Amino acid sequence: MITWGLDTLILTPGAAMRYLTGFSEEGFERLLCLVVPDDRNCVFISPTLNAEQTRKNPAGISDIRVWDDGQGWESTIKELSSQLDLDIGIVGVDEGMSARFLLRIQELLPTTLFKSTERVFSDCRIHKDGGELASMQHAAEISDRATAAGVNECMVGRTEKAIALAINNAIALEGASTSFETIVSSGSNSALPHHTPGSRRLRNGDIVNLDFGARYDGYCGDITRVISIGKPSDEAKNIYDIVYSAHQAARAAAKPGVSAQSVDAAARAVITEAGYGEFFIHRTGHGIGLDDHEQPNIVSGNNQQLLPGMCFSIEPGIYLPGKFGIRLENIYTITKDGCRSFNQEISPSLNFIEAMES
Amino acid sequence: MITWGLDTLILTPGAAMRYLTGFSEEGFERLLCLVVPDDRNCVFISPTLNAEQTRKNPAGISDIRVWDDGQGWESTIKELSSQLDLDIGIVGVDEGMSARFLLRIQELLPTTLFKSTERVFSDCRIHKDGGELASMQHAAEISDRATAAGVNECMVGRTEKAIALAINNAIALEGASTSFETIVSSGSNSALPHHTPGSRRLRNGDIVNLDFGARYDGYCGDITRVISIGKPSDEAKNIYDIVYSAHQAARAAAKPGVSAQSVDAAARAVITEAGYGEFFIHRTGHGIGLDDHEQPNIVSGNNQQLLPGMCFSIEPGIYLPGKFGIRLENIYTITKDGCRSFNQEISPSLNFIEAMES
Repeated sequence: MITWGLDTLILTPGAAMRYLTGFSEEGFERLLCLVVPDDRNCVFISPTLNAEQTRKNPAGISDIRVWDDGQGWESTIKELSSQLDLDIGIVGVDEGMSARFLLRIQELLPTTLFKSTERVFSDCRIHKDGGELASMQHAAEISDRATAAGVNECMVGRTEKAIALAINNAIALEGASTSFETIVSSGSNSALPHHTPGSRRLRNGDIVNLDFGARYDGYCGDITRVISIGKPSDEAKNIYDIVYSAHQAARAAAKPGVSAQSVDAAARAVITEAGYGEFFIHRTGHGIGLDDHEQPNIVSGNNQQLLPGMCFSIEPGIYLPGKFGIRLENIYTITKDGCRSFNQEISPSLNFIEAMES
Repeated sequence: MITWGLDTLILTPGAAMRYLTGFSEEGFERLLCLVVPDDRNCVFISPTLNAEQTRKNPAGISDIRVWDDGQGWESTIKELSSQLDLDIGIVGVDEGMSARFLLRIQELLPTTLFKSTERVFSDCRIHKDGGELASMQHAAEISDRATAAGVNECMVGRTEKAIALAINNAIALEGASTSFETIVSSGSNSALPHHTPGSRRLRNGDIVNLDFGARYDGYCGDITRVISIGKPSDEAKNIYDIVYSAHQAARAAAKPGVSAQSVDAAARAVITEAGYGEFFIHRTGHGIGLDDHEQPNIVSGNNQQLLPGMCFSIEPGIYLPGKFGIRLENIYTITKDGCRSFNQEISPSLNFIEAMES
């Protein structure tokens, strides 16, 4: 807070609150937040509805200001403002705080300067300790096993939604949740990197992308695998080979002391060299931890030096509009002399399954 | 926009964007937004990653400004600001916009006044038309059927998570998604209205609350049912009867022309009369539609007059800390002379199932 010139933090439920307190129950449209003054005890503001959960926060914060549905939370903020001089200070808020709360708090405290705490927390959270790495490994292993469950459902006639459900169930049966909404994209839908699984049924000749992750103990897994329904075309095999080479090039580039953007450049060079640069329409990867997307981003322009304990995805892709797309993703952590994959190895060539009717 | 004095709207993915355009693909940490000027054509700002999806928006908006991961979205906002004079105007943003975007946009446009569009949209969305009511009905019917799937799993030894999974699967198998994270709370956990399902296993004598909803065609269902594992105690039967009476009192009060708070008061009077007023720790209900919680809130202080086509939950509850809680919820729409439940009727007395080992 001193480094970033912040007098007080106001954090709504999410990764930052969880990182500080181990607590992250949702208040939804009711304000539930942690107030962190620079030199006094922390305070939770909680709806009555969540008061008992908030009182049990693992950080043992005992100053819980509870508000009722009939009364609202505004007076509690005003009261804290007087106690903590919020009106003459700089307040950092979590990047996930919704406008519903932020605009109202800005209105209540018109002389306060509000700043994002994104950098405050990313500078801490980017360095994972042993316990965090163990949770990441666990999340990755559940994700690996769920891949098999998804591939098993890849039959002609199955819908994308049904395959996503099989993956989500495999994750839930291990007591984990999903890191984000599972993506299953088939046929020409696979050319949309963030396709929402729909009612399209798999056909012979489809390329299918499975992109999802299990979240374990708060920490996110993330993996993308691609298979062909029936024998793949030469074009699909070729694109897979290029993306696989790009993935391996990025992986070889990732070691202590190199910049995040140089890892992006390594993957991009392979795809550009092969003539598909314009179809690689996103960054090579993103940091991962309590959030599925956090720092360090593996993207052009990011000079961040990679160091042991940092965790991120490598996921180059090529998307041919109207035809198909292929993305290959594992998550990695920087080690003392290179990087280590949390996930199992990616197949070096495009796997296909016989086109069986479901 | 004229009524509320807004010159321009900037809406990120969510119910407001969907209400206007039928489009609501997620951009996650990448800015994807709809810009609505007062007298010119609408513009989408989209990451390259989502460009093809955005171009297919059902509203046919053709001005799509695409930005790359390497470049960022800030210059696009600055460019639009010059074209639309955002710097001398009042900009309304959706209540779900995250601080990640809002603080950065405020920084880019320091002379612009930002306001919430919550009231702008709630004043429109609160009145459901026939098509919307049909979607709500469909969502409620899927929710009703999923209740049976959840109750079937209520056996001694089953975890709360496993029961939640059974409910979620029943919803997914009908091609719907969940309105919010399914709540299954058992034993003393049922005294926490917003309990997150965990690894607690059901025991003989438990009270179990199932609170969830199916989302169909964007519209949300929401239902809460309660059962006892093995024969219930006299106390549990008594609390159930009181909550049931409170529910019926609220329902009888809900008709055209009455205020939202009078419906809350009707439920609260029954519970207070029975001596449990302090244990009814939330409002009686919330509006429902494209969001699972929207206007009209059925809460003390809300003078909103209820009118035909408005939709909301009635869900009184009594929560005895450390013992158990009971909440009973259906969703309703105001008709020309009263209200109609979208869900099946609630059992007038506490159902129990034989305590069978799973």
